Formats: sequence, structure tokens, C-alpha cells
Amino acid sequence: MKSIATFYHAGCPVCVSAEQLVVSAIDPNRFDVKVIHLGEDKSSVSVAEKAGVKSVPALVLDGQVFHINHGAPLSALK
Amino acid sequence: MKSIATFYHAGCPVCVSAEQLVVSAIDPNRFDVKVIHLGEDKSSVSVAEKAGVKSVPALVLDGQVFHINHGAPLSALK
Repeated sequence: MKSIATFYHAGCPVCVSAEQLVVSAIDPNRFDVKVIHLGEDKSSVSVAEKAGVKSVPALVLDGQVFHINHGAPLSALK
Repeated sequence: MKSIATFYHAGCPVCVSAEQLVVSAIDPNRFDVKVIHLGEDKSSVSVAEKAGVKSVPALVLDGQVFHINHGAPLSALK
């Protein structure tokens, strides 16, 4: 069974750059990659928050949060 | 030809956690993954710095730096 990798971003340049390279680098044989644009999908902001996401871009692998660089705090997306 | 993915860390808990999950998530068919422990390999600190690494853990994909969470600034490793 594949693990879930969720990439949260908000469409900012930092996020888009991270998305393209990081998401494309993830092994598709081991992970189902979901990309969620929190600027467009406001209902996912609370889901991201519960997962421990503090800022975007962030990658959640097997429930563990990795904040990548720093685009915007989650509070800016509410 | 595979791209190079270099993961710089310094053995701190934040770095080791990031290393295990992030490095294992990278597609081995597309990237040659190098893991460099800057605490043990001081000569690589200047290489990392030239690549744009400001803190560890950091992942350099195709020459682009992604700072993941925050373990330690590079200055602490000199």
C-alpha cells in the first residue's frame, strides 16, 4: 500500500517553485501525492492546521510535517 | 541521466527525522541522492554555502535549495 504525501501550497512563487521540484522528486511507486492549494481550497486550511502545518509550502509525509522554505503563514490564508 | 539530490544535515534530531522520510521519498529512478553530514564533513560546509544553503536540514534538487524545517544555521557548523 502506498503512503500519502500531501503538499500544501498557496500559489505563491516560493510555493510553486517548491511544488514543481519537490513533488516531481517524490517516488510515485511509494507515495500517492496530493497537491492542495490552500488559497483556493479554504476548507482544507483547518485540515492542514490539524496535521501540524504552520506555513506553506509544506509537505506531509506519513503524517509528519516538513515546512519547506517559507512562503506564507497559515494565518494569512484564513 | 539522473539529477542530483543532495541532502545536507548535521545529525540533529530534526535533521535525522527529515533525512529518513524525505530522502526515502525521493524517486531513485530520477535522482542520485547524496547525504552529507556537515557536522562530520566540515570541508563540505563551504560547498553547501556556495549552493545557497543557510541552515540544515536542506535539500538541493537540481541546484535549487529547499530548507526543511529548521535544525541549525550553517554558522553553527563552522
